[in-house]
Amino acid sequence: MISLAGWDILGNGSATYFYSAIFIEDTIVLIAMLEVRTESTIICQNILNTKSAILVIGGAEDKVNFREILSTFWSRSGGSESILAIVPSASREPAVLGGRYETIFEEFGSKKIKILDIRDRTQSEDPQFREYIEECTGIFLTGGDQLRLCGLLSETSILERIRQRVHSGDVTLAGTSAGAAVMGYHMIAGGGSAESPNRSLVDLTLGFGMIPEVIVDQHFHNRNRMARLLSAVSAHPDRLAIGIDEDTCAMFERDGTVNILGKGTVTIVNAGEMSYTNRDEVGTEDPLSLHNLKLHVLSRGDVYHMERNLAFAKKTLINDQNCPL
Amino acid sequence: MISLAGWDILGNGSATYFYSAIFIEDTIVLIAMLEVRTESTIICQNILNTKSAILVIGGAEDKVNFREILSTFWSRSGGSESILAIVPSASREPAVLGGRYETIFEEFGSKKIKILDIRDRTQSEDPQFREYIEECTGIFLTGGDQLRLCGLLSETSILERIRQRVHSGDVTLAGTSAGAAVMGYHMIAGGGSAESPNRSLVDLTLGFGMIPEVIVDQHFHNRNRMARLLSAVSAHPDRLAIGIDEDTCAMFERDGTVNILGKGTVTIVNAGEMSYTNRDEVGTEDPLSLHNLKLHVLSRGDVYHMERNLAFAKKTLINDQNCPL
Repeated sequence: MISLAGWDILGNGSATYFYSAIFIEDTIVLIAMLEVRTESTIICQNILNTKSAILVIGGAEDKVNFREILSTFWSRSGGSESILAIVPSASREPAVLGGRYETIFEEFGSKKIKILDIRDRTQSEDPQFREYIEECTGIFLTGGDQLRLCGLLSETSILERIRQRVHSGDVTLAGTSAGAAVMGYHMIAGGGSAESPNRSLVDLTLGFGMIPEVIVDQHFHNRNRMARLLSAVSAHPDRLAIGIDEDTCAMFERDGTVNILGKGTVTIVNAGEMSYTNRDEVGTEDPLSLHNLKLHVLSRGDVYHMERNLAFAKKTLINDQNCPL
Repeated sequence: MISLAGWDILGNGSATYFYSAIFIEDTIVLIAMLEVRTESTIICQNILNTKSAILVIGGAEDKVNFREILSTFWSRSGGSESILAIVPSASREPAVLGGRYETIFEEFGSKKIKILDIRDRTQSEDPQFREYIEECTGIFLTGGDQLRLCGLLSETSILERIRQRVHSGDVTLAGTSAGAAVMGYHMIAGGGSAESPNRSLVDLTLGFGMIPEVIVDQHFHNRNRMARLLSAVSAHPDRLAIGIDEDTCAMFERDGTVNILGKGTVTIVNAGEMSYTNRDEVGTEDPLSLHNLKLHVLSRGDVYHMERNLAFAKKTLINDQNCPL
């Protein structure tokens, strides 16, 4: 199977690079690079070395204009060869919202699209749905209410099968807003803002565990959610806290890197070296102490390396023969 | 001159400590410590080793009940021997607001209190005001509008004299809200929230330079100001960015430590080891990248060491014979 992987633009101030790529089986191959204003160069190969990915989207992604995030999901699912499942179960208007995404992916030109309109836990046993999950190359979880989504799908056999296929790299997964919130093992179900970080500022429960090592928050700076994310970090400092702005995507690659797409920022709080928290000693509404956290604010074209807790600007890697990724 | 320095409570889960202290000349001396539930112990001496301090208050400090922050300012200014100047020039109702603080410090029992109601730049030459500044032991800058405060006082001879006396440790200075915002060399004049960090999200100008190495934001988590503080950091990564919640105080000691008082948190963003920002390459409304920042969230009883960029819980130092401060 050969399909177009999409295109991208890179710039480093003195030069701009336009590149495109194709998929050949499971490997993405750079097929064209046009450099403007300076001599030829190469991109660190590891940036584009996998096909399936998990796209965690901060909600309100562009559905009308350039649609960068949705078209990236489509191309990473196989482009014109893609077989897509849309899961609108987080929404109280699943048919309408599912239909909207169906129209978009039809316009892009998918091979096959199906809305898995699961409104009842028993539907997870539907043989048609189960069969389609085996076949599909991309799964999209819409926005809505993450508690509703978990209520319908958590601990069902269809979700377990989706998780297996995602983890084995057989399918590309995307989730936006509520669909993003469920990605971690721990999930932010709700919370407040405009308060000092404190235990009662965030409601935590269990998510789908697609990327168990992260806790995701969405509509992040748009809804001023830093204090609630910090409150979540205090509960689970062993997880990487990730706040994703609207129309912004953290795309998790299978090699442990995260690429940033879209119009806003991705905020990463790493408490791996936290030297102190008072969490276990204070009341639920008392202010929290969290000493010695690492903070990254990433925007389009940045790359984060999960294991090494390092952030890079992709363009700074262009001429790096000793690519650190 | 001997005066009461105030009291404090420390606890480490297994024991609670009540202590009090007096000033003898310029040195604060621990005079009483009562430990409840465990054997006797000592406090790292350096915590209480100076008298004058700069209290940076996040606004809306308690003026009615226990008044922890205001009473600490009063005691660090000399307590019953204090000669206080209240500068209400940030406010559009300077007489009312100045009067309110005057009443509070009268209740505490200051030796002398004067409201320096400067409403015009020429008043900075008023011989009475100049004389009082030489005499006073504590200066309090009220809230209001930091641009108004700067417009009236920046580059006046009275402000220069205040700065000299503060820097030589002869006087304790406090500022709340607008009075806190002016403390740095760079000042946040205004800004927005609910957006990805971007250059246009914060308006920066020059402050009073009382603590030149910091950029202060106030009403911090209460008004969701993390994104604007990060935007400010990108402009001046060599400064320490400090966001102070309401009814919370970062008290800067002359030995380079910062003690936290009050009901909320103090958020510290240190960009000293920032590995990358796109600030100089992007448009004013484009999202910012800021890689590899250090973040501390501090609450009451925490201590921050400016030079070493380290945070401690004061109680963890109680039994530390090799006190790291």
